[in-house]
Amino acid sequence: MGMTMTQKILAAHANLPEVKAGQLIEANLDLVLANDITGPVAIHEIQRLKKKTVFDKDKIALVPDHFTPNKDIKSAEHCKCVREFAKEHDITNYFEIGEMGIEHALLPEKGLIVAGETCIGADSHTCTYGALGAFSTGVGSTDMGAGMITGKAWFKVPAAIKFILTGEPKEWVSGKDVILHIIGMIGVDGALYKSMEFVGAGIKNLTMDDRFTIANMAIEAGAKNGIFPVDDLTISYMKEHGAKPYTIYEADEDAEYEQIITINLSELEPTVAFPHLPENTKTVKEAGEVRIDQVVIGSCTNGRIGDLRIAAKVLEGRKVAKGMRAIVFPATQAIYLQAIEEGLIQTFIKAGCVVSTPTCGPCLGGHMGILAAGERAASTTNRNFVGRMGHVESEVYLCSPAVAAASAVTGKISEPSELFS
Amino acid sequence: MGMTMTQKILAAHANLPEVKAGQLIEANLDLVLANDITGPVAIHEIQRLKKKTVFDKDKIALVPDHFTPNKDIKSAEHCKCVREFAKEHDITNYFEIGEMGIEHALLPEKGLIVAGETCIGADSHTCTYGALGAFSTGVGSTDMGAGMITGKAWFKVPAAIKFILTGEPKEWVSGKDVILHIIGMIGVDGALYKSMEFVGAGIKNLTMDDRFTIANMAIEAGAKNGIFPVDDLTISYMKEHGAKPYTIYEADEDAEYEQIITINLSELEPTVAFPHLPENTKTVKEAGEVRIDQVVIGSCTNGRIGDLRIAAKVLEGRKVAKGMRAIVFPATQAIYLQAIEEGLIQTFIKAGCVVSTPTCGPCLGGHMGILAAGERAASTTNRNFVGRMGHVESEVYLCSPAVAAASAVTGKISEPSELFS
Repeated sequence: MGMTMTQKILAAHANLPEVKAGQLIEANLDLVLANDITGPVAIHEIQRLKKKTVFDKDKIALVPDHFTPNKDIKSAEHCKCVREFAKEHDITNYFEIGEMGIEHALLPEKGLIVAGETCIGADSHTCTYGALGAFSTGVGSTDMGAGMITGKAWFKVPAAIKFILTGEPKEWVSGKDVILHIIGMIGVDGALYKSMEFVGAGIKNLTMDDRFTIANMAIEAGAKNGIFPVDDLTISYMKEHGAKPYTIYEADEDAEYEQIITINLSELEPTVAFPHLPENTKTVKEAGEVRIDQVVIGSCTNGRIGDLRIAAKVLEGRKVAKGMRAIVFPATQAIYLQAIEEGLIQTFIKAGCVVSTPTCGPCLGGHMGILAAGERAASTTNRNFVGRMGHVESEVYLCSPAVAAASAVTGKISEPSELFS
Repeated sequence: MGMTMTQKILAAHANLPEVKAGQLIEANLDLVLANDITGPVAIHEIQRLKKKTVFDKDKIALVPDHFTPNKDIKSAEHCKCVREFAKEHDITNYFEIGEMGIEHALLPEKGLIVAGETCIGADSHTCTYGALGAFSTGVGSTDMGAGMITGKAWFKVPAAIKFILTGEPKEWVSGKDVILHIIGMIGVDGALYKSMEFVGAGIKNLTMDDRFTIANMAIEAGAKNGIFPVDDLTISYMKEHGAKPYTIYEADEDAEYEQIITINLSELEPTVAFPHLPENTKTVKEAGEVRIDQVVIGSCTNGRIGDLRIAAKVLEGRKVAKGMRAIVFPATQAIYLQAIEEGLIQTFIKAGCVVSTPTCGPCLGGHMGILAAGERAASTTNRNFVGRMGHVESEVYLCSPAVAAASAVTGKISEPSELFS
């Protein structure tokens, strides 16, 4: 029996000729990631164990992006802890605010993670880099801390589900709609501890930003990782963003999949996940009248330039509804600058949007757009659990940038096409 | 004995032929201001007293600018309180985030306050509008609440200090240096409950943004208000920003001043106020080696377009020092947009600055750049009290945008001229 794409990467990094689902292995890591929330937990453990060195100062990325710019004294102390650790260990890829962005948009943009690599990050959306054909997954702070010291991590080799994507998405249907549709279909535990391997002729119709969004939310179906094959688009993305050598792994023809699901992208509609689980999906057409108070466009899921272009296309020449707060977060400084150069930020400001510096902000209820009791947000972020964006009596509706932008204009969950008819 | 400029405005608004320093009067108000911190306190009192109407829905401004976008659930509830009050009373000048900015930059920009008017605001820097030749002062939330209902407020008519400004400031010397110099000279209680009346031939050499900065910090010398005469520049500013009729009041020739201080602007140097009082001023040349961790450029004191232009001139083609956090806050959405159109924001981002949406943010230790223990900031804000920007063991050095920008580049409190030699 052959190996899946994920299994092949893991086998190579464990120096094993083959691995099987369920097998416990120890794999070498190409990148270990922490942020301002998870970093300090690991750093304190490393200090407690009196470890003096990290495994490789070039293979650790520290990105203070969650509560930055510091929202309070506590977050300032956390950032200081990470900053001082980075200085003490001369960590190459420590990113101070001003040179940074949201970790999962930043690392691919900086060329720090490429196809065929293994990455662990103490952040659940570390699975994002599967879009590049890498194995990457979120772990707890202590596993991440051990990874920073040893350069290794243990894994139970995951089984896999194959998603065969066919067809071409309609206008206003994006990667977000694809992954929301899938999670709606299989549920938030539908891929528990499994790899979601995306294949098929439809992939060529997905931009890199679409693929990042899809891989990013693999965890929302419980997956260990999500992964895409490497094609010309992937290669040109990697070449544009860095010079790190990559390795292309392909699943064996006889790889074992626990399930094979075919999705015709051309049949998908703009989709929204109702509170309080990402699996509570409806098409926007089925959503009914859902008044909203706030729109959030951004995050590691949907704050890339392609996302901002779509949102700006909807908002161009329009105004956000009276009483609506619409908050746009470019995911990195580079994206922010490019969005200015393309006139997108100007469109947002003219439309009455708040445009923030890159930060995770309200996505996790951190800061910069927290909801009061009874308030509702349409958000391009990744989770809509109870209290995720603020008060336990607030509600989050997950959607694409196009739907979020249209909803900002109308004041209720809306199809973008409504504004162009 | 004649009246000062301030006394003339107060007499007219009290329908009295004349007023004298120390006299208690009740004056009619042209504008009553509250924000997301002070508004709810007053609103709760108004609700407790079962008051059903405000004195004039067009003469109240509600600007949620301090903890916005909402930093946490509590601030979200405060903003909701203000928003719902504005809706209930159909307040014309409620500004939602996205259409707003920092109150003291926003109201003049929107033409809501002009020469000869009276304004109270439940925010100590309400004295800013004295730059336009208005009487404006900060009051407590309950006085403000009473003002919202009655359209009147009581005042003890202030005595005055006359500041005769002469000469022209040197390059890199701005309004901020002028007011820091004055506070350094007279102390933080040097003008306690008095009017600071600025006059003299030097005023024509101060931009409107300089004058706003100077009037803004009158409270830092303990003043009841700071006020400038109305000249052609004031008139053209008012005409550019609105159509509200204004009235020019001039001090009588025999007006009484408790003190007359002459300042030759051409002798001033870039100035910095050391912790922990605005009166602890030194010229930057005298400052010695002061390493800093963070630079803040913005606030109601120094977040206007002129401020951003100067900062960008210093940062153009340069990078902020390694490990430095430099955070820029355009004071309003209009300033943000203009700064993009002029390429200033692009300069900041390329230099490695964080560029935030308009918010009071870290100025008052709110959010978006809070300091940890032992950290130092050079900041264009208005107060450097113990713990003002975060931890009680952090330090704030007040300075101009030019000095702040230069300090961001060098990593220590610096003269801008150092970078241009």
